Amino acid sequence: MIAANNPRLKTWIEVPENSDFPIQNIPFGIIKPAGKEPRPATRIGDTVIDLSTLTDFGYFDELDIDNYGVFLAPVLNDFMALGAPIWSAVRNRLSELFNIDNTELQNNEGAMANCLCGINDVEMMLPVEVGDYTDFYSSIEHATNVGIMFRDPENALLPNWKHIPVGYHGRSSSIVVSGTEIHRPMGQTKGDDMKAPSFGPSRLVDFELETAFITGKSSKLGEHVSIEETDDYIFGMVLFNDLSARDIQKWEYVPLGPFLSKSFGSVISPWIVTMEALQPFMVEGPKQEPAVLPYLEFTGKKNIDINLEVSLSPEDGDDTIICNSNFKFMYWNMNQQLAHHTINGCNINIGDMYGSGTISGPTPDSYGSMLELSWKGTKPIKLSDGSERKFIQDNDTITMRGHAQNSNYRIGFGECVTKILPAK
Amino acid sequence: MIAANNPRLKTWIEVPENSDFPIQNIPFGIIKPAGKEPRPATRIGDTVIDLSTLTDFGYFDELDIDNYGVFLAPVLNDFMALGAPIWSAVRNRLSELFNIDNTELQNNEGAMANCLCGINDVEMMLPVEVGDYTDFYSSIEHATNVGIMFRDPENALLPNWKHIPVGYHGRSSSIVVSGTEIHRPMGQTKGDDMKAPSFGPSRLVDFELETAFITGKSSKLGEHVSIEETDDYIFGMVLFNDLSARDIQKWEYVPLGPFLSKSFGSVISPWIVTMEALQPFMVEGPKQEPAVLPYLEFTGKKNIDINLEVSLSPEDGDDTIICNSNFKFMYWNMNQQLAHHTINGCNINIGDMYGSGTISGPTPDSYGSMLELSWKGTKPIKLSDGSERKFIQDNDTITMRGHAQNSNYRIGFGECVTKILPAK
Repeated sequence: MIAANNPRLKTWIEVPENSDFPIQNIPFGIIKPAGKEPRPATRIGDTVIDLSTLTDFGYFDELDIDNYGVFLAPVLNDFMALGAPIWSAVRNRLSELFNIDNTELQNNEGAMANCLCGINDVEMMLPVEVGDYTDFYSSIEHATNVGIMFRDPENALLPNWKHIPVGYHGRSSSIVVSGTEIHRPMGQTKGDDMKAPSFGPSRLVDFELETAFITGKSSKLGEHVSIEETDDYIFGMVLFNDLSARDIQKWEYVPLGPFLSKSFGSVISPWIVTMEALQPFMVEGPKQEPAVLPYLEFTGKKNIDINLEVSLSPEDGDDTIICNSNFKFMYWNMNQQLAHHTINGCNINIGDMYGSGTISGPTPDSYGSMLELSWKGTKPIKLSDGSERKFIQDNDTITMRGHAQNSNYRIGFGECVTKILPAK
Repeated sequence: MIAANNPRLKTWIEVPENSDFPIQNIPFGIIKPAGKEPRPATRIGDTVIDLSTLTDFGYFDELDIDNYGVFLAPVLNDFMALGAPIWSAVRNRLSELFNIDNTELQNNEGAMANCLCGINDVEMMLPVEVGDYTDFYSSIEHATNVGIMFRDPENALLPNWKHIPVGYHGRSSSIVVSGTEIHRPMGQTKGDDMKAPSFGPSRLVDFELETAFITGKSSKLGEHVSIEETDDYIFGMVLFNDLSARDIQKWEYVPLGPFLSKSFGSVISPWIVTMEALQPFMVEGPKQEPAVLPYLEFTGKKNIDINLEVSLSPEDGDDTIICNSNFKFMYWNMNQQLAHHTINGCNINIGDMYGSGTISGPTPDSYGSMLELSWKGTKPIKLSDGSERKFIQDNDTITMRGHAQNSNYRIGFGECVTKILPAK
């Protein structure tokens, strides 16, 4: 067992009941304390731990790190570049330092004042510099729902879907951190009954409930990352809101795929939960039939049991949970996605991000987009204040939450919050 | 007139007849001299001029530059960040320094030995760090040819094509500089007569003759770059070989667009030719009918008369020119592409790259891909050695060349060279 995952561990930091961030989590993020530069941090309960000041006070001295500058960088890319053994060593060291029996930091008031602060005292920043971003389409329930609605109910899945973890290149510049407010996009749309397209604000802004993984290791152009090697490349995961303007998408996407319907903002949760922390929650995925080609064959449990929920709150209104899904439903797993991505020799970089595709479950309340939840607008979603939604309205806030839970503890992602502002 | 474009300028550097690089060009690139770090440079004739040593010798002292470190950076991004007035000032200063009447450098043997060398004494590097890469689809001849071959000869253009400069997100990590050898990609393909896909080397590797522009100014998420503002954002252009594996593309691309069929390598020419240098070659584009939406309306000449050619040479064989096209044929211009790209608030960064899409002309010898030249493999292309090609074979080298020419001088791009190696 990975030491830092020991369910018996307790910490001297206060951890609220049902916190996403017990001592077994130890995610990585970038904080900006008031008046200071952004820097790497972790979180236990509602306490944020500044890794740059921990370094200054010598708490990482025993680690075999060539470049301690990684803990003063404004993104985690250089830290990830140190490699998986160091990711693990840092996580274990943090686990040790905040163990209830450890007094190294606990008894050093000066260090504590410098290294710890409340989550509300910092601004959360984008944790990585994203080189390339790829979005997959790996939920069979989502692909089926979309196929039924827009193509052919009898042949909802396209012929390639069960052979290829279908994916496409996305826009990385517009990936922002939770809390960033996004304006409703302007664009061209054309109704079926219109002769020509018209221009204006999108009327069909939607969320897509996704997770994303981040690679912490690079490969060279021309190299394949075999499915056995993929685990070494995946640093961790975040929640991902792949905002989509359905009416813009419908008009623009043939024949080369979504473009402006997706690039007006994609929102991630700020804490990267490591694959190590998620290890206890690995489960079998759905049976893949027909059998996949050999380069996509894998062994072991590669799906993860992560409960996911989405809520919508109107301005000054209450939160209504409108979707309960789970990452375990995914047909294609992350290892297959990465093995496929590199089978042509495409090189990957540290900090690259890979969206799962909308995570829909088998029941209507588990669909991961308003398109599916409202079934193309035909079944409006009821909110707790009595109002209804087909798609996102101006000033609505979408909040995604996710956590894995067993009888011992919960490993969570915190929140991914997106408020949609009126068009500019 | 822009001073550095004066056709009467002569230089004390030797310039071979019909060189792409007269003193009126002054492109920007990144060179790596043997044993030294990569650094910015320009080129006149076959002479490379090291901008970092020019800086060291004080030749840029009169320029109002805050950060001379940009001339020792391994990519041009920081130089571009200085803004259009500085791009212009540096180009004018170089024009002045290498003017035949100027003795500042010409008479300083020590400085000359440090600042100048032959093009064959340096390695050319990727000139920019590419954040995001977008590929457009803006040649009406190309889109029509593809539509005739794969969809419906009667309705070759899709309904959105004349309303939207159709584009899609591409992979930036696999953009490499001219001369990089690319392995034939492995992947899934499925013939129409096959029940299931098979795995192996792509059999239909193709080039796409494109140009790409590079933005030297960034915008913020939520902002639109209006078509009037777009000129301020475009730093310059390169030749772009958008390598494509047609059989992989055919199987993977529905419904979300090309993915692994394009991300095994995209090759650019090393010298960025500035928009300023191309100014004398602006021409009217094709009439756009139906009229475009107001945000895509432009004034002035926005197409550019750039002769483009592609040649193929088998290993140890002669070069055969297989395509003669021209950038002036493009239906959508770069200003429209950028205004469209940002209409939804998508932010752009310095170093982002934008491919034109395959540049096909109206005649069969001007088609910008082997798919079109060989008309889907039905009309093999004859090479000078008597052999034939439908698509690219192992160890074939594709060379793209491009230049604008008037009665005074030629502004060229040099070469974009790609050798296809056997699959790994």
